[in-house]
Order: sequence, then C-alpha cells, then structure tokens
Amino acid sequence: MTKSPLSSRLADALSVTSQAVNTELDRLLPVSDGPDARVHEAMRYATLDGGKRLRPFLVMQSASLFNVSESAALRVACAIEMVHCYSLVHDDLPCMDDDDLRRGRPTCHRAFDESTALLAGDALLTKAFEVLANPATHSDPTVRCDLVAELAHASGGQGMVGGQMIDLQAENLDLDVAGITRLQQMKTGRLFSFSCEAGAVMGKAHGELHLALRNYAHDLGLAFQIADDILDVEGDAVEVGKKVGKDADAGKATFVSLLGLERARSQAALLAEQACRHLDPFGEKGDLMRDVARYVVQRRS
Amino acid sequence: MTKSPLSSRLADALSVTSQAVNTELDRLLPVSDGPDARVHEAMRYATLDGGKRLRPFLVMQSASLFNVSESAALRVACAIEMVHCYSLVHDDLPCMDDDDLRRGRPTCHRAFDESTALLAGDALLTKAFEVLANPATHSDPTVRCDLVAELAHASGGQGMVGGQMIDLQAENLDLDVAGITRLQQMKTGRLFSFSCEAGAVMGKAHGELHLALRNYAHDLGLAFQIADDILDVEGDAVEVGKKVGKDADAGKATFVSLLGLERARSQAALLAEQACRHLDPFGEKGDLMRDVARYVVQRRS
Repeated sequence: MTKSPLSSRLADALSVTSQAVNTELDRLLPVSDGPDARVHEAMRYATLDGGKRLRPFLVMQSASLFNVSESAALRVACAIEMVHCYSLVHDDLPCMDDDDLRRGRPTCHRAFDESTALLAGDALLTKAFEVLANPATHSDPTVRCDLVAELAHASGGQGMVGGQMIDLQAENLDLDVAGITRLQQMKTGRLFSFSCEAGAVMGKAHGELHLALRNYAHDLGLAFQIADDILDVEGDAVEVGKKVGKDADAGKATFVSLLGLERARSQAALLAEQACRHLDPFGEKGDLMRDVARYVVQRRS
Repeated sequence: MTKSPLSSRLADALSVTSQAVNTELDRLLPVSDGPDARVHEAMRYATLDGGKRLRPFLVMQSASLFNVSESAALRVACAIEMVHCYSLVHDDLPCMDDDDLRRGRPTCHRAFDESTALLAGDALLTKAFEVLANPATHSDPTVRCDLVAELAHASGGQGMVGGQMIDLQAENLDLDVAGITRLQQMKTGRLFSFSCEAGAVMGKAHGELHLALRNYAHDLGLAFQIADDILDVEGDAVEVGKKVGKDADAGKATFVSLLGLERARSQAALLAEQACRHLDPFGEKGDLMRDVARYVVQRRS
C-alpha cells in the first residue's frame, strides 16, 4: 500500500485537530445508564475515532484566520462533524445506499440495528443545533443564530438533503456536467462552504475576506467530489474504507463517466490550484488550507 | 360515529389556529421545480392539512398569555409542528413501527417511498431550527437561541428520540408505572412542555408564571398519553386515523395494562383537573388551555 501524499505539516495539523475533536465530541455527547443508553452508544459509535475530520479542520483553520477562540471554534467543528456523521449514518441505511462498511468498520445499522441507527442520526442532527445555540459557542447570540440558520440551510432540503434526493434519482435523470455539479454542490459542497465560512461568521468578517473563503470552499468542494469519483473508479475498498465502484454499478453519471479519467483528473487539479489562489488575501496564514486543497485531489481514501 | 366531546369554544379556536398554521407552513416550506422537488413534496405531504395541531395551539395560547406577537408565535408553532411531523414520518418507517396509515391517509413512505420519507423527515427537523433562528421569530437573538436550544434538548437523544429508543425496547424492559411515565415524559411530554413554555420564553417571563406552564405541561402530557393508551385499546381505527391495538399486540406495558382501564381513566381525569389548577395565576386568560386539558382525556381520536 502506497502512502497517501500528505505533507507532514498537514498530517500533523490534521492529527492535532482530530484529537481535539474526539475529546470535545466525547464531552458534548451525552451518556446514559438508563434504557436510552443504546441510542447514545450508537451516536458515539458513528462519530468518535473516525474519518479525516476535514470539515472540522476547515472550521478550525478559518477560525484561526480571524483570531476566533479555539475552544469556541471547536464547538462549531464538532457541530459540523455531527451533521456530517448523521448524514453518513442515514445514507448507509438499507433504504438508501445499503452499505455495510464505513471508515473500515461495520456501518452503524450493522453494528446496532436499523431503528437505532435511524434514531442516532436524528439525535446527532438535533444535537448539532443545540451545541451551536449554546452561549459557550459565541458570546454574541446573533452570531450563534447565524451559525444555526446557515448550518440548517446548508444541510436541509435546499442543501445536503436536497442533493441526496437528486442523487437517489440520478440513474433516471441523465445528468450532464452542470447537473452533476449542482447535485454535488448541494450534497457535499454546502457543508464544505459552511465549514470554510464559519470562521468569518464567528469573526464577524464581511466583504472581501468572507467572499474569499466562499470562493475557496466552492472550488475545494468540487475538487473533492471529482477526486471522490476518481477514487470510486480507481480506489481499493480496504484503503478507501468503504465500498467502491458503486456509482458505475448503479449506472449513475459521475464526473469520471462524463469527462473521462484524464480530464477529470486535470479538472480536479485545476480547481485545487484555483482554490489556493482565492486564499491570497490571507498570505501565509492560509498555507494549511492550501495544503488541504492539494491533498483532497491526491488522497487515496 | 359519536361526535368528539369538544367544547365549541375550543373547536373554533383550534380551527382558527389550524388554518393559520397551514398557511404559515405552506409559506415556510420551500418548493422546487428542480430534481429535488420530490423531497419538498414529501415534506408538504407530511405536514400540511393534517392533525389536530395541538402543539401549535399550545404555543399560540401560551404566547397570548404574555402578549407575544401572533406572527412571531406562529413561526414557533410551525417549528414545533415540523418536529412533531418529522417524528411521525420516521416513526412510521418499516424499521420502526411499520405503519401504513397516519391521520387517515397513507403514511409518507407509502405515499412516496422509504428513502424519500427518511430524507423528508431529516429536512423537516432541520427546517424547524432554521425557522427558529431567523430574526422574524423574535427581535432578541438570545430568545431565538433559547428556543433553538430548548427545542433541540426536548426533541433529541435526551428527549423525544431517547423516549423512542426506550419504546423500541419496551417489550423486553418489563417497565413499571414509573418506567412508563419516564418513557412517555421523554417521548411525548418534552414536546408538550416546549409548546406550553414557548410563550414564557418569548415573553421573557421567569419565576412563577413560567413554572405554572411547566407544571401544566407536565400533567397535560401525562394525561394525553394515558388517554392515548386508552384509545389504543378502545378506539376505532377509522376514527383514530391510525392503527389501534398495537401496544397490546406487541406485548408492551402501557398505562392501561399496568393500571387497568378504570384506574387509567380516573388517573387521566385527575391529571387533567390538576393541569387546569396550575393555570390559576392566569385567571380567565387560561380558559382555552383548560379546555385543552379536558379535551385530551375525552377525545376519540
């Protein structure tokens, strides 16, 4: 197995954030010794010790650009990770993608059961908003309301969930590149945007700097998704940690099926470089976010 | 079919609220002419033109006790109804109660399909928080954050979802009256409490008046649930609008199986009267909420 091409600077920083996120998630997620314990265990199973924590990392990095307190940013990072993990739990259910493997382990409904996984997903989504609304997340309640409203908009029927709805029907929609782009913007792009813009919201930055992050997130999200489509064709299930070849099996249009492997690869690289350039106003402070853009198109999982 | 024993004063008021809630839900829920339209149609199917709108009614009534603007209260009423309807959609899924009938119509997953129903429930829950966080709900962002945090706490893993988790395991738990009471407090009581206290939160009322509403909600919620158990034994599926006899079929303990029909009935009546007395501090302004307490133990659906 070849090692993922991850700069050691980025690898170290991701590892620090990942540990901090695990510790904070562990603190935020309730435990119970009552008969409701099972749903709390499933919530923890679905969120703790897994994944690259890319979205939380982007929250922490964007917050650092505006000198937002780390402990506050960490709560927002955990909220977005709860929403991301809820979406994976529901996506893996038999009535959706019916997956057995996630992050190299049995999916939540395989480790527990379908009804417990459904409820754990519901509770994770709910908890994310509870965390954001809590005064510990930001001293200014207007900022907390903005975070709630923007995360809801990004993840709801006009965002992530709407994208999942389109994805479910994609086999019959005959989507072109514009259609796939819209689908992916909704399904994964909107949560990336929230993550990248969270720092600007918390730091009450408007205008050019906020816009720079929005543009970065746009290109990063697309690059990420094209790379995902390439991995779905070329990846190894063990290394990727989930089933591969699904889209091709389902006869769904992807960036690879529409553009071909080579053009998809060069398009992803182009978007990653473009994403980096959007960070020019931040100078060297944006270096780790530039590393992320280069990493997402070179990763093997 | 005998008519439900509903005072005409309450019937008129419920009807007015119900129409206002339908209009506002219709306004708040997005429409789409794109490929994501299906999830929006399912959200509308699951929420519009159905149910007694008891929780929204309690929000509107408690808001009127503190002279909160009707248009603001209506948004909170719609948010709680979205959460209530999402919980019904997910509860009806095959991996949960596997119900075909709800409010006298096919359940959401029967009218659409399982994956669409799952996503519609997710999007309704998400939308509720988006509505609460929006400035139109209250001019004070601290109040909006309180509403978000309290609705999340009431409906999440330590509230409604936790109660559903216990309910799923109830057959094997050998619950006594205290255990059933705790289950029902979590599963349905917490949303009633949110509804009844919403007015106090929006009106920034603390102390005795807020406590009075909390106590009212506590007794009302229990009375409601005992009456539900009685309906599950005695009710007619057509009149009730959903399958009856489920708990007995599943061998689950209920207030009726533990107390017997007569004691359950008198306990419900006692709780309803006790709920009314908690409203003493509000004088005549609490009359419609008193009517609700008497109605929930006499209803036939």
